[in-house]
Amino acid sequence: MLERTLRVNSLYDFYQSLLTDKQREYMKLYYFDDLSLAEISEHTKVSRQAVYDTLKRTEKILETYEDNLSLCEKYEQRLAIIQEVEESYGDPNKIKELVSKLKDLG
Amino acid sequence: MLERTLRVNSLYDFYQSLLTDKQREYMKLYYFDDLSLAEISEHTKVSRQAVYDTLKRTEKILETYEDNLSLCEKYEQRLAIIQEVEESYGDPNKIKELVSKLKDLG
Repeated sequence: MLERTLRVNSLYDFYQSLLTDKQREYMKLYYFDDLSLAEISEHTKVSRQAVYDTLKRTEKILETYEDNLSLCEKYEQRLAIIQEVEESYGDPNKIKELVSKLKDLG
Repeated sequence: MLERTLRVNSLYDFYQSLLTDKQREYMKLYYFDDLSLAEISEHTKVSRQAVYDTLKRTEKILETYEDNLSLCEKYEQRLAIIQEVEESYGDPNKIKELVSKLKDLG
């Protein structure tokens, strides 16, 4: 569950701008404000089932964007390379190799 | 016109996976295979006007993705920093500064 939350948070970071206001609102209430489905249902005057469906559908949309664009995955790859660079300042050849990897990532 | 073509090519590189098969096909025929609207119309058995509308709509979709995700813009910023790194191999402090910029870009 925690792992799922971290994953959704990460996807949300990258793709929130592609969601509708409603999708963003429900995600925020559930994942960031930590409300229960019942509380969101009360807050939004929408049935608990409809809240659940919207959340599930939104998570699926986020995963589909990641399947297509891989922004999370590339970010993590880029970060790993940058961390290696930070451990290699004294070694220009190593840095050259890492920079070449960064370029390949796009 | 050439500038527009370069722009669309660049957007297409980043966001083609989010288009439908039809949108991709028309973009490919027009921008990559360099067919005219009339030729695409003949090839696809669709009116010239419908081809034009699909192309315009698709370009707008690509621009909207860029407005929301800025992948082209960030790519260019990242590339500019990487090129500076490539000119600074003998200067660890400069590289540290550039790496910090790369991290901020995400």
